[in-house]
Amino acid sequence: MQMRFDGRLGFPGGLVNLQDGSLEAGLRRELSEELGEAAAHVPLERADYRSSHAAPGPRVVAHFYAKQLTLEQLLAVEKGAPRAKDHGLEVLGLVRVPLYTLRDGVGGLPAFLENSFIGAAKEQLLEAALCGAVEPEMRSLGQRRGGGNRECFLFWA
Amino acid sequence: MQMRFDGRLGFPGGLVNLQDGSLEAGLRRELSEELGEAAAHVPLERADYRSSHAAPGPRVVAHFYAKQLTLEQLLAVEKGAPRAKDHGLEVLGLVRVPLYTLRDGVGGLPAFLENSFIGAAKEQLLEAALCGAVEPEMRSLGQRRGGGNRECFLFWA
Repeated sequence: MQMRFDGRLGFPGGLVNLQDGSLEAGLRRELSEELGEAAAHVPLERADYRSSHAAPGPRVVAHFYAKQLTLEQLLAVEKGAPRAKDHGLEVLGLVRVPLYTLRDGVGGLPAFLENSFIGAAKEQLLEAALCGAVEPEMRSLGQRRGGGNRECFLFWA
Repeated sequence: MQMRFDGRLGFPGGLVNLQDGSLEAGLRRELSEELGEAAAHVPLERADYRSSHAAPGPRVVAHFYAKQLTLEQLLAVEKGAPRAKDHGLEVLGLVRVPLYTLRDGVGGLPAFLENSFIGAAKEQLLEAALCGAVEPEMRSLGQRRGGGNRECFLFWA
């Protein structure tokens, strides 16, 4: 899954254009924009379709596709993702989903579904943000390229 | 921030070894293991120290460091992260934090702090997991390398 520009976890995808010709072609275009060329080369067919969900917005239906990747394909997608057109704009990063439960019965998929922060990470994040740990150059870049009132992107180590 | 093996969002880091010699040396080693060489080359000093938090566990105190990166440094870290030693094991992916609020007053940092899923993404994730969209080869790899009862890693597009 990916962290979206709006701070929510979601799957890559987007609106299909009339020019796309088919749902699958539209999805391939979105995958290419959001994840890069390695994702665009993964064969994606009608057989990978799983379900449809009516979104809360007007006239939007989300069609869900699932595709198994080999570890090699997954790594190629991950390595190429920072070079994708939408990286740093619509997409803030790619994460693997932990499809397991650790021995404590919470860590792994249960914690992911609740999506929580570890320890004091949430407080640390706010502390650093309030201290103004923002790169001015990145702030202006975010404003210029991101449009709207997105202000900046930041990463801490 | 990064998605951790336990399904929680957190900052890179870890326990300092006696051999590390200093907190900063221990942090540099952990950054190298979790994020790769580009992160290890970012200068990290005592001046970057922000605060300390007593963790719930026994005898653990978390020392928090914050570092401003240029966009070029950030991109280098992101591109190198999938090659890091702990990638796919302790670390499931790297995400930028949206340090802005969208016009709806929720999207961006507020949604990130609540860390929620977009639309039907949570239900779609469970649907795909229940349908058994798991690569057997990856499952065995996860068991072999991850230890414990981590079972598999999976990615959908």
